[in-house]
Amino acid sequence: MVSAPSGSPVLLQVHECDNVAIVANDGGLPAGSRLDHGLMLRETVPQGHKVALQDIAAGAPVVRYGVAIGAATEDIRAGDWVHEQRLRLPAAPSFSDLPVSTRTTSPPPLEGYTFRGYRNRDGSVGTRNILAVTTTVQCVAGVVEHAVGRIRSELLPRYPNVDDVVGLEHNYGCGIAIEAPGADIPIRTLRNISLNPNFGGEIMVLSLGCEKLQPVRLLKGIPIGHSGGATAMEGAEVLCLQDPAHGGFESMIASIMGSAEKHLARLDARQRETVPASELVVGVQCGGSDAFSGVTANPAVGFCTDLLVRAGATVLFSEVTEVRDGVAQLTARAASPQIAQAILRELAWYDSYLARGGAERSANTTPGNKAGGLSNIVEKAMGSIVKSGSTPITGVLAPGEKVCGRGLIFAATPASDFICGTLQLAAGMNLHVFTTGRGTPYNLSGVPVLKVSTRTELARRWHDLIDLDAGAIASGSATVEETGWALFRMLLQTASGARRTCAERLRLANSLVLFNPAPVT
Amino acid sequence: MVSAPSGSPVLLQVHECDNVAIVANDGGLPAGSRLDHGLMLRETVPQGHKVALQDIAAGAPVVRYGVAIGAATEDIRAGDWVHEQRLRLPAAPSFSDLPVSTRTTSPPPLEGYTFRGYRNRDGSVGTRNILAVTTTVQCVAGVVEHAVGRIRSELLPRYPNVDDVVGLEHNYGCGIAIEAPGADIPIRTLRNISLNPNFGGEIMVLSLGCEKLQPVRLLKGIPIGHSGGATAMEGAEVLCLQDPAHGGFESMIASIMGSAEKHLARLDARQRETVPASELVVGVQCGGSDAFSGVTANPAVGFCTDLLVRAGATVLFSEVTEVRDGVAQLTARAASPQIAQAILRELAWYDSYLARGGAERSANTTPGNKAGGLSNIVEKAMGSIVKSGSTPITGVLAPGEKVCGRGLIFAATPASDFICGTLQLAAGMNLHVFTTGRGTPYNLSGVPVLKVSTRTELARRWHDLIDLDAGAIASGSATVEETGWALFRMLLQTASGARRTCAERLRLANSLVLFNPAPVT
Repeated sequence: MVSAPSGSPVLLQVHECDNVAIVANDGGLPAGSRLDHGLMLRETVPQGHKVALQDIAAGAPVVRYGVAIGAATEDIRAGDWVHEQRLRLPAAPSFSDLPVSTRTTSPPPLEGYTFRGYRNRDGSVGTRNILAVTTTVQCVAGVVEHAVGRIRSELLPRYPNVDDVVGLEHNYGCGIAIEAPGADIPIRTLRNISLNPNFGGEIMVLSLGCEKLQPVRLLKGIPIGHSGGATAMEGAEVLCLQDPAHGGFESMIASIMGSAEKHLARLDARQRETVPASELVVGVQCGGSDAFSGVTANPAVGFCTDLLVRAGATVLFSEVTEVRDGVAQLTARAASPQIAQAILRELAWYDSYLARGGAERSANTTPGNKAGGLSNIVEKAMGSIVKSGSTPITGVLAPGEKVCGRGLIFAATPASDFICGTLQLAAGMNLHVFTTGRGTPYNLSGVPVLKVSTRTELARRWHDLIDLDAGAIASGSATVEETGWALFRMLLQTASGARRTCAERLRLANSLVLFNPAPVT
Repeated sequence: MVSAPSGSPVLLQVHECDNVAIVANDGGLPAGSRLDHGLMLRETVPQGHKVALQDIAAGAPVVRYGVAIGAATEDIRAGDWVHEQRLRLPAAPSFSDLPVSTRTTSPPPLEGYTFRGYRNRDGSVGTRNILAVTTTVQCVAGVVEHAVGRIRSELLPRYPNVDDVVGLEHNYGCGIAIEAPGADIPIRTLRNISLNPNFGGEIMVLSLGCEKLQPVRLLKGIPIGHSGGATAMEGAEVLCLQDPAHGGFESMIASIMGSAEKHLARLDARQRETVPASELVVGVQCGGSDAFSGVTANPAVGFCTDLLVRAGATVLFSEVTEVRDGVAQLTARAASPQIAQAILRELAWYDSYLARGGAERSANTTPGNKAGGLSNIVEKAMGSIVKSGSTPITGVLAPGEKVCGRGLIFAATPASDFICGTLQLAAGMNLHVFTTGRGTPYNLSGVPVLKVSTRTELARRWHDLIDLDAGAIASGSATVEETGWALFRMLLQTASGARRTCAERLRLANSLVLFNPAPVT
């Protein structure tokens, strides 16, 4: 990196081969600014945007992260602003001739780290103790929302060891082509969310009765039982609004409240215990990215990913369109050729899913990405993929599947923040790390979400929404390693309940958003 | 219809050509039951299910509503239960050789009916006076939900003439292929919902800032202005969470509350006035249907549809897969060949949408439909389409479009309750009629939804959820005409605010669900 005293022009170069660097200064830099190496800015360049470090002829590669992020559409001179109009998007990398399992050295273990969690009967560990109300269909959402409000205000105060009650509402369940290709994705997603470690194995399901997604189908493999008494619950309890026993709305609410109370009593009796850090299942994601994402927050998350994997934990990285251009990195890091194959299977499936709908990977970037300096999906992907750190990839999940192994897992999901988060919840994450450059109040109600900002200005301005600032990396006042360790420690504290996230304090939450590639009817 | 004294077996035959009739008795009828015409039940038949009135040879048509709903898969004898296994689904009707505009006699006008509504500057009339917060993207949903809660508890009591404040949250706006075919559907849906007559022209929009669906794109054709003072607002006001002026969450909430107050003050100053019934825009829909839907509730709604159209009002009927098998009825009733063409355009588009996803119209029926006696989509469609009454079809809307003409409009939508309701809201409905046989607590927060039950048992059991019982038609103690008139009068009362619906009293609401046929990224 090119560093400079505070107030002076600061350019950030990620890789020694790069022929561009980004402007770090808040507010950008005016034309005429004198840079290191005798370079002078020929145009005013906004913060996060790229400056050519040398002349780049039309057609020659523009290199960032050591990777050609595009070809110059015109002759570019040293000191020019390399904006999106000056870059031609390369074709997506082919799936042939990829390096397979060539970078699979296991990192040294990291021992002795623990947190205080809720051990579940299936062996998983919760970081929170939450009663979740699973729903089969959107039809019951209004009733669930009402019931959850009543449970929260009337019952929860009597069960102080229970953190929250959440309704797992969604848009699926009826009016859908349930036998069409891909329909299994939203169904297993809902099923696996009900099994999330933070919900303590208390599977309380609300059904309408006539919906397409019947409880037995939603719960395939999970026995349907009764709420039971003080002893542990086996299987799932299903309440049905169309049950003839329900004499209208108040009777439905009374029935839900009665059932919730039994689940709450059992959840309340649980205690946190000391467990190894290997019980963490951390989903990493970015949203509202800018050109700093790949320089500050995401490398710090990547370093933390390595720490977690070395501690024996599980880390889920996702967002297919944001790793698609880095496919060679993924197959090289696949722990086995089978895992490389599984990665390619998921990427190819997504290519064809997009093509069927008349789209491709370049549909990913947003106006905000571009305003933040990310010219195209290749540049965005190179900055996104670094969240996965450097360890071998030991597993692959199709959308909605639940993780079983440990280590670094590629959980294939769309990059949409809410769909990715929902699928990582289904995969079994008990902690969530979310990096943002432009800023988003993103949160999920089932799992603590730590938000990491790419820029200090954002962290300062959104003081009550950002949990950790990685922006100091840009000014050189913190290193990637320091910030990664700070995040690692914050994750353990948060997992233990000793720290609540900003969004938990504000009780903010976004909706679950299911990935349904099949049609609606 | 075959009527009988209470307690005796009751079979309902819809059309004189039908060779099946349905069992009306609660709890069904046991084998051996003696029916009229010397018929004896050869099997126990559940309520709502079909009985053969005569022998039907294998391969011969099973006729209900005067239409072949399928072919017998085996020899069926008079008194047999004609369940779904005994019916083979016919191919979807072709789009060639259809009758075009052959049934277009205009019904006699119905004059003198009025209601008390809120006249808007664009000429439309609201039945409620609601502040809606339009959102560009799911990212802002958590903040909007929080703000709406605060507005409702802190501000709304000071503006007693405003009925409610609602957040128009949804899953769209980012992580989507916004240039893909079909992406215009969810965008225009959101835009047109913000223009719904019940929101009084106060377009308050909350944006994140970096999302794909930028406010200018969402609001295409609507000027973006400021909330202004006491005078009428022109265009839309947009607040952006990433605006540098927002110093975190509390500052965002304060900004939203401040803006809401100006909108509330203007809404509060409005008065209801007497307007003709022709200002009603009624969306009709059914959900959780059973075999009674097409015999009781839907015919009553169809009669009311005719009354509304005769009074000069607009009625929207929808649910493409539930009219697909009745295409010949629709083209025959098209007021012009252009309208017939537009109907075919929408049905053909939906056929290809389903086919692209590996599905077809038969994906529509649910386990509950089948348990309720509806054997397949043809039978369901014949019972669903009668909601449209008998008048000529004077307009066609593609999904998400806003209605301009009056009369009976085919608003093409998926049959999914929430997607259909959301699209009818976008079309401009100011009142919603929803029929149900199995029972659903369905509601939307932006418009009064009157729920009509197909069966008296449901209306009695769900006494606080069902607004009108059409079940008495089955027992012969009320006629279709009487029930249709009762609904018509209830609509005018509800439109005037003199009556609140069950769901309004309970403050129940389901989510908006957008129809997005394009991929997510």
